[in-house]
Amino acid sequence: MYDVIVIGGGPAGLTSALYVARAGKSVLILEQNAFGGQMATAPKIENFPGVDSIDGATLANNMFEQAVAHGVEFDMGSATVSVVDDSTRHFVVTTEYAEHQAKSVIIASGVSHKHLGVDGESALEGKGVCYCAVCDGSFYKDKPVVVVGDGNSAVQYALYLATICSQVTLLTWSNKLFCDGELAQRLKVNDKIEWVQNATVQQIVGDDCVTGVAYADEIGAITYHDCDAVFVAIGQLPHNETFASVVELDERGYIVAGEDCKTTCPGIFVAGDCRTKSIRQCATAVGDGAVAGFSASMYVDKL
Amino acid sequence: MYDVIVIGGGPAGLTSALYVARAGKSVLILEQNAFGGQMATAPKIENFPGVDSIDGATLANNMFEQAVAHGVEFDMGSATVSVVDDSTRHFVVTTEYAEHQAKSVIIASGVSHKHLGVDGESALEGKGVCYCAVCDGSFYKDKPVVVVGDGNSAVQYALYLATICSQVTLLTWSNKLFCDGELAQRLKVNDKIEWVQNATVQQIVGDDCVTGVAYADEIGAITYHDCDAVFVAIGQLPHNETFASVVELDERGYIVAGEDCKTTCPGIFVAGDCRTKSIRQCATAVGDGAVAGFSASMYVDKL
Repeated sequence: MYDVIVIGGGPAGLTSALYVARAGKSVLILEQNAFGGQMATAPKIENFPGVDSIDGATLANNMFEQAVAHGVEFDMGSATVSVVDDSTRHFVVTTEYAEHQAKSVIIASGVSHKHLGVDGESALEGKGVCYCAVCDGSFYKDKPVVVVGDGNSAVQYALYLATICSQVTLLTWSNKLFCDGELAQRLKVNDKIEWVQNATVQQIVGDDCVTGVAYADEIGAITYHDCDAVFVAIGQLPHNETFASVVELDERGYIVAGEDCKTTCPGIFVAGDCRTKSIRQCATAVGDGAVAGFSASMYVDKL
Repeated sequence: MYDVIVIGGGPAGLTSALYVARAGKSVLILEQNAFGGQMATAPKIENFPGVDSIDGATLANNMFEQAVAHGVEFDMGSATVSVVDDSTRHFVVTTEYAEHQAKSVIIASGVSHKHLGVDGESALEGKGVCYCAVCDGSFYKDKPVVVVGDGNSAVQYALYLATICSQVTLLTWSNKLFCDGELAQRLKVNDKIEWVQNATVQQIVGDDCVTGVAYADEIGAITYHDCDAVFVAIGQLPHNETFASVVELDERGYIVAGEDCKTTCPGIFVAGDCRTKSIRQCATAVGDGAVAGFSASMYVDKL
């Protein structure tokens, strides 16, 4: 039986596992795709403190190597968790390949950004197609950019980018915004932001990098618009359905926990983007990882 | 007038300033001693994710260079803050050398660890004299260590180190513990921990690194005890007195704020160890920095 199993190998999970290992505990980390999570797909990261401009895959690999060097074991697989509530209360973590047991579990399953699903989007991801304004906005200083979406995130992206970029065009599917009134008001008075209504993105255009976007209006007429980046802000998807039987999720599917990273199930902790929180960044994910890793170690000691 | 002034140049402050600069805002960071804060004095850091074993001064310098490369201005000085509540509500930040104005302020003033003040302590700091078990415990795997202190932190240090080190000796000044009963109970049943009562540390012994500690009993008889490290856990001191007129402090002097880093004064944010929180690590400090930097930028945009 492991002391701790960490589900998810992004920055939150890798930091959690590092902290558990350094506390002298046995720890297994499970990842279903590639270690590093969303971070690993970023072509350039400039806002991770202490690390100069770096590609995400290298930063991810550094975190992975660091964890393994401290004794963290790893395995691949998509995990589910159940509680064994007998005299030696523990957890069973099952993947498609194996069954593991642990005294404590840290869920760091991350989120994924919803995609438009149009031509050019996946080919140009990281080459002008972006999903996080705070992460990537400053790469487009004094350049024209497009934001796609009509909710709080999209309008916040537009307002944020308007302070950095030369021009921001917000494309919304209908003629309505689904955001806080105060955000909508700020959008409307910002003369660097153009709001184009009833616009359905058809294609993101570019060879080596984004050069524009093509969108249809309500009668199907196509407009081509020059830009250096397209920020897609149509929602994020946590992947916590499988954990709903053991921990409480909020109405959007995030695992309910405060900054102490304690879930509603004693012995299960949560770290990173899959937790209820307002700002999701690499830097906040590693903060969660330190807290969850330390707290899980203390939990195991108390058993 | 700056958009944002950051007070304190440790990992929380430097990350805050980086996030503000990348949001397209002007930002000044003020430090009274050396950039990097407590981190800068650590001889070896192995638990900062993504950065392999590194000395604290180098990591501090990397964070500083990164902030400056993104346009952060810096100055030296010990800062006080006052609010100007006229039609253009703003803040005046005064140091012994200059007076600056800003639309928003982030306080990241850190904490310092209380010192014993005995011979050998400062000379051997980072060479076996430690102030953080989670940071440095794993450097003393399977070695005998001493913890000095009688509160929650000291007992938690002893329990944490007992899972890593070969032997832990807890030295308390009196015959009492001032910690939670459950912690005291766990201490008493842990056969890797020896509790020596009525022990007043006289000297920390060692040439290049700690080799032992000398303590006096209640009648003044001196005992010499071999060990590889001495963890001093007699309290931390935040340095927030000067900010008490503008933000609420808790009874221990920490600035009251949740993980959103918002203080009781709109426009003033707080990041890092000087905030009310339970786990103080480099990794949690940079998480706070991202949140405070982003939130201060959004606050300025709304003005």
